[in-house]
Amino acid sequence: MIAIIKQGVQKNQIDTLVQWLENQNLTVHISNGEFTTILGLVGDTTKIDIELLENLDIVEKVKRISEPYKSANRKFHPQDSIIDVGGVKIGGGNFAVIAGPCSVESEEQIVEIAKKVKESGATLLRGGAFKPRTSPYDFQGLKADGLELLKIAKQETGMPIVTEIMNANHLELFDDVDLIQVGARNMQNFDLLKELGKTKKPILLKRGLANTMKEWLMSAEYIMSGGNENIILCERGIRTFETYTRNTLDLSAVPMLKELSHLPVIVDPSHATGISRMVKPMALAATACGTDGLMIEVHNNPQKALCDGAQSLTPDEFSDVMNSVSKIVEVMK
Amino acid sequence: MIAIIKQGVQKNQIDTLVQWLENQNLTVHISNGEFTTILGLVGDTTKIDIELLENLDIVEKVKRISEPYKSANRKFHPQDSIIDVGGVKIGGGNFAVIAGPCSVESEEQIVEIAKKVKESGATLLRGGAFKPRTSPYDFQGLKADGLELLKIAKQETGMPIVTEIMNANHLELFDDVDLIQVGARNMQNFDLLKELGKTKKPILLKRGLANTMKEWLMSAEYIMSGGNENIILCERGIRTFETYTRNTLDLSAVPMLKELSHLPVIVDPSHATGISRMVKPMALAATACGTDGLMIEVHNNPQKALCDGAQSLTPDEFSDVMNSVSKIVEVMK
Amino acid sequence: MIAIIKQGVQKNQIDTLVQWLENQNLTVHISNGEFTTILGLVGDTTKIDIELLENLDIVEKVKRISEPYKSANRKFHPQDSIIDVGGVKIGGGNFAVIAGPCSVESEEQIVEIAKKVKESGATLLRGGAFKPRTSPYDFQGLKADGLELLKIAKQETGMPIVTEIMNANHLELFDDVDLIQVGARNMQNFDLLKELGKTKKPILLKRGLANTMKEWLMSAEYIMSGGNENIILCERGIRTFETYTRNTLDLSAVPMLKELSHLPVIVDPSHATGISRMVKPMALAATACGTDGLMIEVHNNPQKALCDGAQSLTPDEFSDVMNSVSKIVEVMK
Amino acid sequence: MIAIIKQGVQKNQIDTLVQWLENQNLTVHISNGEFTTILGLVGDTTKIDIELLENLDIVEKVKRISEPYKSANRKFHPQDSIIDVGGVKIGGGNFAVIAGPCSVESEEQIVEIAKKVKESGATLLRGGAFKPRTSPYDFQGLKADGLELLKIAKQETGMPIVTEIMNANHLELFDDVDLIQVGARNMQNFDLLKELGKTKKPILLKRGLANTMKEWLMSAEYIMSGGNENIILCERGIRTFETYTRNTLDLSAVPMLKELSHLPVIVDPSHATGISRMVKPMALAATACGTDGLMIEVHNNPQKALCDGAQSLTPDEFSDVMNSVSKIVEVMK
Repeated sequence: MIAIIKQGVQKNQIDTLVQWLENQNLTVHISNGEFTTILGLVGDTTKIDIELLENLDIVEKVKRISEPYKSANRKFHPQDSIIDVGGVKIGGGNFAVIAGPCSVESEEQIVEIAKKVKESGATLLRGGAFKPRTSPYDFQGLKADGLELLKIAKQETGMPIVTEIMNANHLELFDDVDLIQVGARNMQNFDLLKELGKTKKPILLKRGLANTMKEWLMSAEYIMSGGNENIILCERGIRTFETYTRNTLDLSAVPMLKELSHLPVIVDPSHATGISRMVKPMALAATACGTDGLMIEVHNNPQKALCDGAQSLTPDEFSDVMNSVSKIVEVMK
Repeated sequence: MIAIIKQGVQKNQIDTLVQWLENQNLTVHISNGEFTTILGLVGDTTKIDIELLENLDIVEKVKRISEPYKSANRKFHPQDSIIDVGGVKIGGGNFAVIAGPCSVESEEQIVEIAKKVKESGATLLRGGAFKPRTSPYDFQGLKADGLELLKIAKQETGMPIVTEIMNANHLELFDDVDLIQVGARNMQNFDLLKELGKTKKPILLKRGLANTMKEWLMSAEYIMSGGNENIILCERGIRTFETYTRNTLDLSAVPMLKELSHLPVIVDPSHATGISRMVKPMALAATACGTDGLMIEVHNNPQKALCDGAQSLTPDEFSDVMNSVSKIVEVMK
Repeated sequence: MIAIIKQGVQKNQIDTLVQWLENQNLTVHISNGEFTTILGLVGDTTKIDIELLENLDIVEKVKRISEPYKSANRKFHPQDSIIDVGGVKIGGGNFAVIAGPCSVESEEQIVEIAKKVKESGATLLRGGAFKPRTSPYDFQGLKADGLELLKIAKQETGMPIVTEIMNANHLELFDDVDLIQVGARNMQNFDLLKELGKTKKPILLKRGLANTMKEWLMSAEYIMSGGNENIILCERGIRTFETYTRNTLDLSAVPMLKELSHLPVIVDPSHATGISRMVKPMALAATACGTDGLMIEVHNNPQKALCDGAQSLTPDEFSDVMNSVSKIVEVMK
Repeated sequence: MIAIIKQGVQKNQIDTLVQWLENQNLTVHISNGEFTTILGLVGDTTKIDIELLENLDIVEKVKRISEPYKSANRKFHPQDSIIDVGGVKIGGGNFAVIAGPCSVESEEQIVEIAKKVKESGATLLRGGAFKPRTSPYDFQGLKADGLELLKIAKQETGMPIVTEIMNANHLELFDDVDLIQVGARNMQNFDLLKELGKTKKPILLKRGLANTMKEWLMSAEYIMSGGNENIILCERGIRTFETYTRNTLDLSAVPMLKELSHLPVIVDPSHATGISRMVKPMALAATACGTDGLMIEVHNNPQKALCDGAQSLTPDEFSDVMNSVSKIVEVMK
């Protein structure tokens, strides 16, 4: 960490700061320039509050050299983490596809889709039970009943299940859920993250709509610092000025995160684009840049269901996507 | 609401859709153009899920004409709402200033600041007890102890108190809090919003970092649809590409929200800019474009305290800001 | 195009508007709702100025149904356009790779790189002669001399050359350039676009830093409406809040543009990410989502040259990228 | 400037870099930390190309401490610049209002508006002759004829005139223009900026849609480094995700630029919001945070003219705005 001292600051003020820093178990290198003095802080700076330091009257700027995340940092954990989700491995060369409907609607629906996507090669089943919706008047999901239906589909197909949590108080309902999803809007719901850190459940941490990769890894760090290191990151598009797609899928995040962190990274092309025609090309692109898996929305009865999303594929379309994805997976080996 | 039908869709498919819409108690006007058919939906479209409709195979686009929020909408509530916060009125011509430190640190600190800001004309006291921090390693606030210190400051000065909630389970601790703040990161924590909707407590709803005004009003709607109409909106800067300021204060939101909604709107220039020198000009600007109040960070001992934020004013600086603000308030009458 | 009339507008005012629209050779369908009147405009609305209409006192909103671009629109030109660049075809299944250094520095440099990238499979040579730089104090390129060196490299290798134009007055210097690049900062330099529309030269139109796909296609339309239909679009990253990568590569733009337009779309992963380690994964991703080609920075002497960009590959790294890209190209067939 | 060296770099490689830097007339301070070596560069770093340095294999990051602009920098020019525009002073306490129509349409129109806005207190007349439009099919302005009409209005009223240039080749047509506007889309049209740097004409440099303040000041630097220091900066809104306003007016830019630079800063609330009802509140806000002037669109015949923008005020509305603005100007003294 580097602290740049303002011009014209008295030597005794700098000395006081240096002393305070040394009391935090840091070694301080002082570089006196013509116009500025620069302090180089060596040691464990992870726990230094950068804003706190920047707020000092005598400090112009503070720059971290090392990243503020530790448990999630590849520097301290060079091997890829492999997360075991109900027997299905993700990361470290294990490619996994999560598929299923946006919302669980009925036993028939979820079981049928589960069977279909399993046939096409999906290894995990997703389905929304608690749904975060922008409007209080929109459908909020089947809630606990939806979880029960997911469990039935799990029994019928043997697929581990993935679903979103919106409230730490619901945790006990999630006992049979194999991978708990934290949605984009809750990526910085720190109290929820802390509670999840106390469990050993694998967590699928989606990127916030307007969050940087650094903030995303810091949210992973919240869970990990609580003791739960079973985290899978999921890129699902960020908010930009472009309106032709719902969000802008940031695929550069995949190789960047693989470099910064040892955690598996998967991609959700359905939510990112919001358009079913874009799911296939973006799924292929994600695979080609090294994602550890995909999360794809599939619905079984698009011609009938009103809630069949513009972003959902039919089982046949999904099968076609899987076919192409597996060819890219092959090339990537 | 308007639904634009795709080119080449069969008449019987359109008929099915029209019938379904009419079953939702809407009147449907059909306009057949050369290339497109347009359905004009008349009635209470608030409860129509726009994504659900857009996802239909035969629908090209859906456009709302009327806004999706109802309780927060000025059309249905033309008079300004006036929110009573522990005896202090905000909105409808009542201008209020909330001031205090970022974090409550000690009884001495909070009581002293409270007295100082009251002297300068602040009418509500703020202070953070539960602190949302990007890093799990940063100071997380004094929590319940901080709330106790705030109450002491309230007793000493008579000022109603404002502080942030991060977890609905803490609600009972907030019994003596006069205005409960929902922070930017929790603006779409829908479960928290629902719980707050069940109380009668005034809520200060901060805008999310990357949320549109529409989403913000929809979050207000979550609280209001639960029965709690005591909402104050707080603009605190949005995330953009600019890096010289921490966020970009969107002051256009003030007159725009005053037009769209009857709820009071206040502005937080401290968090928006992150720079104490910017607080005064932006406080004046906010006042000049019609804000119902301000929220300003003030700290009492900047030369000593390491946690004295770059964005905090000293009590003397705050007094100077209040002096100028009151002149603008006078002109605005 | 749909015009939504404000509530409470008099019938005679609407009649005046309808008459004016009909004078523009449009057919107008009127749909009278309970609260709103909607006008559906049928005919060639391309030439209707949407702002002009929206500015009318009686109009609430105007929505285009059809896109405002015509020459670039796939609806009116269903087949893929194939652009011939000095004998190298791009588009319609013809995949092309443009490679070369950021700046032309010397004859030796450009000729050597040209030979190397040709060996690895590049079919076009790029090199900057006129360089747009944020600072007036940064290196502005060799200008006309750089163009001469590019021509030498073209003679030596037979590769068509690609370089950026910044000023329409330089057009005659570009006589021997095979593909003229319009950089991101000039995407809406409309006077430059008009001048390029008068030539028959193939144009490589890069996306502006913060421009939507619609604006980008409208800039293509500027050139095409002048009579020059030889346009290749190049996605090179957009400006977002993320700072770990220089820009955010918007790969969804590739399939989206292929749907909206018949023009070829290529991707520049070097400028988009600004990091040489990201070039390979993003080149593979771009290929997997259907790009018609790639534009990649290659430098020959990274250990010596100070201007060897963090985003440039060595010839060996480029050869490795080409190797992997060709496998994806194979799969995509 | 600080250069952070990568971990594990050999001493001799660092020595080579240090030597190269010293050859650029910089003094280099070396700080050897446990994990990193930091070079502090002292001297005139303005001319060091930061990308060039960052691209070196051995360099992790480069951080500027001092800003890269020099002529525009308040550090080297502490007094406010006052720009004389045809006898009207702007900056250094001189508040000026530029008003007029978006497009010059006819002699009658421009003369009438000129007289009206002058009566209300405007001191400069604006009117578009060359119009940058997103679509080639939209009205492109009266061009040279429009300039002639502006000159007539100048003769009739004595008001200096302001209009936009889109092409350096038109410069001789602008001889009688008092303040030449560079529009947002041309803010980084560096060839245009260079040509304007060769004149002595006052330049109104609008901020680019997605440009940072640093880039904006660098564009001012392009003009100033050519010898023309008569620059006025104009904030006109930036592109964000918000859609209720056309752009997001970044008023924090006003006090920030006043701190960073000595150049006058004015604000255009008409283009920023795109909504005439927002012009008054945002004009007042801009004035309250210290702008040196305003640029406001006024049209004379809104009920008739189809091109009367949603963002234009009538002369009566403008008079009302001026009335309130002058009260804020009074308070600000």
